[in-house]
Amino acid sequence: MVYWAADLDLVFTHAVSSRSMASKTQVGFVGLGNMGSPMAKNLLKHGYPVIATDVFPESCKELQELGAQILDSPAEVADKADRIITMLPSSPNVIEVYTGPNGILKKVKKGSLLIDSSTIDPAVSKEMALAAEKMGAVFMDAPVSGGVGAASSGKLTFMVGGVEEEFTAAKELLSCMGANVVYCGQVGTGQAAKICNNMLLAIGMIGTAETMNLGIRLGLDPKLLTKILNMSSGRCWSSDTYNPVPGVMEGVPSANNYQGGFGTTLMAKDLGLAQNTATNTKTPILLGSLAHQIFRMMCARGYAGKDFSSVFQFLREEEGHTF
Amino acid sequence: MVYWAADLDLVFTHAVSSRSMASKTQVGFVGLGNMGSPMAKNLLKHGYPVIATDVFPESCKELQELGAQILDSPAEVADKADRIITMLPSSPNVIEVYTGPNGILKKVKKGSLLIDSSTIDPAVSKEMALAAEKMGAVFMDAPVSGGVGAASSGKLTFMVGGVEEEFTAAKELLSCMGANVVYCGQVGTGQAAKICNNMLLAIGMIGTAETMNLGIRLGLDPKLLTKILNMSSGRCWSSDTYNPVPGVMEGVPSANNYQGGFGTTLMAKDLGLAQNTATNTKTPILLGSLAHQIFRMMCARGYAGKDFSSVFQFLREEEGHTF
Amino acid sequence: MVYWAADLDLVFTHAVSSRSMASKTQVGFVGLGNMGSPMAKNLLKHGYPVIATDVFPESCKELQELGAQILDSPAEVADKADRIITMLPSSPNVIEVYTGPNGILKKVKKGSLLIDSSTIDPAVSKEMALAAEKMGAVFMDAPVSGGVGAASSGKLTFMVGGVEEEFTAAKELLSCMGANVVYCGQVGTGQAAKICNNMLLAIGMIGTAETMNLGIRLGLDPKLLTKILNMSSGRCWSSDTYNPVPGVMEGVPSANNYQGGFGTTLMAKDLGLAQNTATNTKTPILLGSLAHQIFRMMCARGYAGKDFSSVFQFLREEEGHTF
Amino acid sequence: MVYWAADLDLVFTHAVSSRSMASKTQVGFVGLGNMGSPMAKNLLKHGYPVIATDVFPESCKELQELGAQILDSPAEVADKADRIITMLPSSPNVIEVYTGPNGILKKVKKGSLLIDSSTIDPAVSKEMALAAEKMGAVFMDAPVSGGVGAASSGKLTFMVGGVEEEFTAAKELLSCMGANVVYCGQVGTGQAAKICNNMLLAIGMIGTAETMNLGIRLGLDPKLLTKILNMSSGRCWSSDTYNPVPGVMEGVPSANNYQGGFGTTLMAKDLGLAQNTATNTKTPILLGSLAHQIFRMMCARGYAGKDFSSVFQFLREEEGHTF
Repeated sequence: MVYWAADLDLVFTHAVSSRSMASKTQVGFVGLGNMGSPMAKNLLKHGYPVIATDVFPESCKELQELGAQILDSPAEVADKADRIITMLPSSPNVIEVYTGPNGILKKVKKGSLLIDSSTIDPAVSKEMALAAEKMGAVFMDAPVSGGVGAASSGKLTFMVGGVEEEFTAAKELLSCMGANVVYCGQVGTGQAAKICNNMLLAIGMIGTAETMNLGIRLGLDPKLLTKILNMSSGRCWSSDTYNPVPGVMEGVPSANNYQGGFGTTLMAKDLGLAQNTATNTKTPILLGSLAHQIFRMMCARGYAGKDFSSVFQFLREEEGHTF
Repeated sequence: MVYWAADLDLVFTHAVSSRSMASKTQVGFVGLGNMGSPMAKNLLKHGYPVIATDVFPESCKELQELGAQILDSPAEVADKADRIITMLPSSPNVIEVYTGPNGILKKVKKGSLLIDSSTIDPAVSKEMALAAEKMGAVFMDAPVSGGVGAASSGKLTFMVGGVEEEFTAAKELLSCMGANVVYCGQVGTGQAAKICNNMLLAIGMIGTAETMNLGIRLGLDPKLLTKILNMSSGRCWSSDTYNPVPGVMEGVPSANNYQGGFGTTLMAKDLGLAQNTATNTKTPILLGSLAHQIFRMMCARGYAGKDFSSVFQFLREEEGHTF
Repeated sequence: MVYWAADLDLVFTHAVSSRSMASKTQVGFVGLGNMGSPMAKNLLKHGYPVIATDVFPESCKELQELGAQILDSPAEVADKADRIITMLPSSPNVIEVYTGPNGILKKVKKGSLLIDSSTIDPAVSKEMALAAEKMGAVFMDAPVSGGVGAASSGKLTFMVGGVEEEFTAAKELLSCMGANVVYCGQVGTGQAAKICNNMLLAIGMIGTAETMNLGIRLGLDPKLLTKILNMSSGRCWSSDTYNPVPGVMEGVPSANNYQGGFGTTLMAKDLGLAQNTATNTKTPILLGSLAHQIFRMMCARGYAGKDFSSVFQFLREEEGHTF
Repeated sequence: MVYWAADLDLVFTHAVSSRSMASKTQVGFVGLGNMGSPMAKNLLKHGYPVIATDVFPESCKELQELGAQILDSPAEVADKADRIITMLPSSPNVIEVYTGPNGILKKVKKGSLLIDSSTIDPAVSKEMALAAEKMGAVFMDAPVSGGVGAASSGKLTFMVGGVEEEFTAAKELLSCMGANVVYCGQVGTGQAAKICNNMLLAIGMIGTAETMNLGIRLGLDPKLLTKILNMSSGRCWSSDTYNPVPGVMEGVPSANNYQGGFGTTLMAKDLGLAQNTATNTKTPILLGSLAHQIFRMMCARGYAGKDFSSVFQFLREEEGHTF
C-alpha cells in the first residue's frame, strides 16, 4: 500500500498497523530443513496460511501436503507475503536468500517484516538489516534454542533483536512456534544472546564431563557425585538436567548412547561463531576458545553425529600403561 | 580402654560405642585459623568442651576466653581427647600435625576418631588413615565448602570419607558446624568430592565471566543476558547465585569490589590439588587445567586477595588500538 | 595496448612481456605506513619511479621529497602504473582500495600486475584475485615477514601466491625490498604461509617464556638454561635468536625494555587471522587458539605497544602468599 | 677409609681424591631397563668393572654375560662400589632404591658418589641428596636426553645438578655414556633443565603439527611450508629435525608410521613432572599445561606406544559434514 507520507517512518508505522490487523494472512517461510519444517507446520496449525520455498524440492513435499503453497524462490515468496521467516544453516545461505539474484529483497514489499531464525554472525544480521532498510523493510534476528524436539512441540526459545516497535508483531508469529520469546535489543543481539548461551553451555558440559571423569577415577560413585555437585556451587544445567554420564539420569542422550539431542557438529559451528565474534571485538575467551577446539576435534573423531554430551565418552581413558 | 578381644575390630567397635555414649565429652581441635576458630566456637556453643592447640598462640586467645582449654601440641591434645578435628592449610601441615614428632599419633588413644577438615591431596588423607589405623585410631577426611561466612554461621557443607560405620559419630560432631554432612565413600573421597566441586565451580565462573564480557561487547545489557542465561541451558551457580558482573546482583562480592568471599589464592590452591590428582590418575582435564593457570596468573597480578569472581575484572579489555 | 588476439590469454602474455621489458617504468604504491613507506623508498633506491597514494597526506610527504609522484586515489595510481604494490592494515582496507568507488579496479589497465603485501585472510585475497581477473589484471598475495627493520634495510621475506607465470615479474620488484622471495602456490598461499609461520612463532615464543620462567623458579641460571635448550630438542628461533629474558641476549627487544620489534597488537591480529582460517577449514588448533587468547589479554593489560616477547614479563609472578 | 678429621668436609675431600685416583675401579649400576642396560654396557666398554642389580633378574642376564657382577639388592651394590649410577622409571622407585629397607643408603660407604639419571621431580632429588648427605655420601641428579638410540651409541646428553666440586668425578663416568655432560647448578637443577627442555619440545611439536595441518588445509605443500618455516621465525627442532608430517623428512618416526623414537607415554610423564613443579612453584604454564593434557588424551586413544610426533596424526580431520 502506498500512502501520501512525509517520510519512511510514517509508511513503516502504517505498514506495521496493517500487518498487525491482518494477522491471519499468509506468512512466508524460507528454509524447510530439520528445524524449519516443524516450525512452519506449527504456523499452519495456528491457522496461518504458509507460502514456502526451499532449495531442495523434496523438503517441501510434507508441507505441501499439509496445505502450504510452495513457490520457486525467496523473491517469489516476498512478492506474496509481507511477513517472512527464514531458517537457514549459515551466513552465506542467509546472504544469498536475502540479497542474492532471486532473493527476498529483490521483490520485498515496503513495510514487510523479515525474521531470520538462523544462527549466524551478528555482523551479518546487521548487514541484512541495513539492506532491508534500504528496501523499506524491517529485519529482525530471532535465533532459537531448543532443538528439533522443541521445534516440533512448539516449545522453542526465541532470542529477538531489532527495532523494539516491531517486537510485538514478531512475537505474535513466533509464539506459535515457541514457549519463550525474549526481546534482546538492537539487531544482532538475538544472535549475541544465543551465541553467548551456547558458549557457556559448551564450557559447562565439558567442565561437567571432566569433573565426573576425575571423580570416578578418584573413587566416587557418579550418582553421588552428581548429587553433591547439584547441591553445591558446582551446579549447572549440564550436571542437573543433561548429565553426560550414562546411568546417572534418564531421558537424556547419555542414557541412549548419545543419540538424538544437539549434535557435536552444531555445537562446533556455534562455537566457531562465538570465536569469530570474540576475535572481531577483541574479547579474550580462553575457555570458550578451547571448548571450540575440543568439539572440533570430536567432530573429526567419530562424534560428529552424536549429542554434544558425548564429550564424556571422548575423554574417557583406556590406557594400559602404568607410568 | 583395653579389653580382652580377639582382634582390633572388636576393640574398635567397643571404642566407638564408648565414644557415642560419652557424646558431650571434650573434643580436640587442632588449627584455629580463619576457618578453624569459628568452627571450634560452634562446638563450644553446642556444649562440647574443647581442648585446642595452634602453632600461633595469638590464634588461641579468643577461644581460650570462651572457655576452651589450650595445650601446647597436637600430641597433648590427643592425650586428652578421643575425638579430634583438624583444620590446617595444606598437606605438609597435616602430615606434621598427625605424624610429626609432637603429632597426634604420638599419643593417640586406641579407638580415637580423627576428622581432618583440611583440603588436601586425597593420597595424603589415605596415608594418614593408614598411619592412624596402625595406632588403632580411625581417620576420616571431611573437607568443607562454604567459606568463613558459613563457618561462623554453622552452615558449612562437609564431604566425608572413611569407614561407613564411623559416619554417624562424625556426623554428630560435624552437624554442630554444618548444615550438610554428606557421606562420600572410602577415605579420600571427601577430598575428591570437594576438589571436583571446586574445579567445576572454577570452570563455571571463568566461563560465566567470559560469556558476560563477550555479551556486553556485543551490545547486550548484562542484566538481560543474565536473565536469558538463567532461563536457558547456560545456567550455572556462577550466573544465577554469584554473578561476577558488578550491578547484576546484590549481596555478592561483585557488588562490593570483590571483597570477602572465596579468595583467588584459595581457588588456585584447590585447582592445584585437582591438577595433581588428575596427573596422578592420568585423567585429562583440559578446561580444569587451563582454569588453574588462569587463577594462578591472577594471583600474580594483584587479584590474590580478591574474591575469585574478580576474574571478570581480570578479563576486561582496556585496549586503545583499532586493529 | 590492444592487439588482435583470440583470447585474453594472449593479451595477458603480451602484457606480461611488455611489463618485463619495460622494467624501470613507474611502479604504483598504495599504503605508505610504517611498512609501506620504507618499502616504497627501496623501490626508488633501485631506480623505479614511484607513483603513490595514502589516505593520510602526511604519510606521503617524505616519499614526495624523495621524488615520488603523489596522486589522490588508488584509481588514479592504477591509471598511470601497470604494476602496483599495496601495503594496508587489514582486509576491509584491501577490499576498499581494490574494489571501492575510487579503487584500483575502477581504472586498472588490462594486463596489470597487482601485488598485495598486506597480511589478510586468504579468502579475501582470493576474492580480490577473482575481481582483478574480471578486469583483465593479475593479482598476487605477497605478505611479508621481518618487520620495520627489515623493511628499511630491504631484507624482508615475501611469501608469494598467485599464477606461477607471473612470479618472475613479481620477484623482480619484490627483490628490491626483500632478501627472500618465495613462491608458495596459488593465490592465498602466500597469506597461508605467513599466517602459519606467525602462529608457530607465537607458540614458540610463549612456550619459551613459560619454560624460561619455570626454569628460573627451579633455580636455573637463565643463560645456562638458554644454552642447554639451544643445544637440545627444545631449540627454537625464540630461544636462540630472539630470547625474551632480559640479560640473556643483546640486540633484541628484551634487552631494551621490549621496545621496538614486532608489537603484541600485530601478533594478536595475525593470530586472529590464523584462528579465522582454522575455523573456516575446521582445523583444530589448540595451542594456536590459546596463544591468540594470551596475546589478546596482553593487549588489554598494557602490552599492546611492546614487542611480543614481553609475554615473559606478562607471565612473571609477583605473588606474596605461601599457599 | 677413616681419617682423623675435624669435620665431614675433610672426609669428603679425601674421599673424592680417593675416588678420582682409583678411576677404573668398579662402578655400581641399579636399573637395567631400556636405558640402563645400554648405559651400563658403555661403562663396561670403557673398561669399568660393573656391579649391577635390577628388580627383574631377566634384565640382568645380558650384562652378566658381558662380565658384570650381578648382586641381589641396591644395598649390596653400595657395599661394594663407591660410585653408583641409578636409572629408574619414577620417583617412588628412586625413593625405594635409595632409602628403602634394602636401599643404597643402608650400606653406602662414606664419601661415595651417587648419580641418579632417572627423570623425577627435583624435589625428590633434593630429598635424596639430604638423605645421602646424612650418610656421608654425595648425591647428584643427572637425567638424560637422547633416548634409547643415544643410550646405545653413547651419545646421551646429561644435565647434572649437585655440588660443583663433584662434577669432574661425575663427568668422568658420564662421558662414557654421553656426548654432552652439562653442569646445571645445585641438586635438582639437572632435573629442572631436563623437564624444561621437554616441556618446550612438547609445545614446539604440537605447535608444528597444528601449523603443518593448517597449512596443508589452506593449500600449501608440506615440504614447501616446512622449508619456509625453517628459514623463518617459526623454525624449531620439531620442524627442522624431527618433522611430524609423513613424507617431509626421512629417518624420523613420521617416515616410519611413528614407530620407535620417544613414546607419547614418556612425554606425558615428563609433562606431568613439569606440571607438578609448576604447581609447586606457582608458575603459570598455559601452553605447557595444555600440551600435557593433549598428550594425556593421546595415551588414552591408541597413541601411547607411538612416537610423540604422532600428534600430527591425532589432529588430522576426517569429518564428512559441511557445516
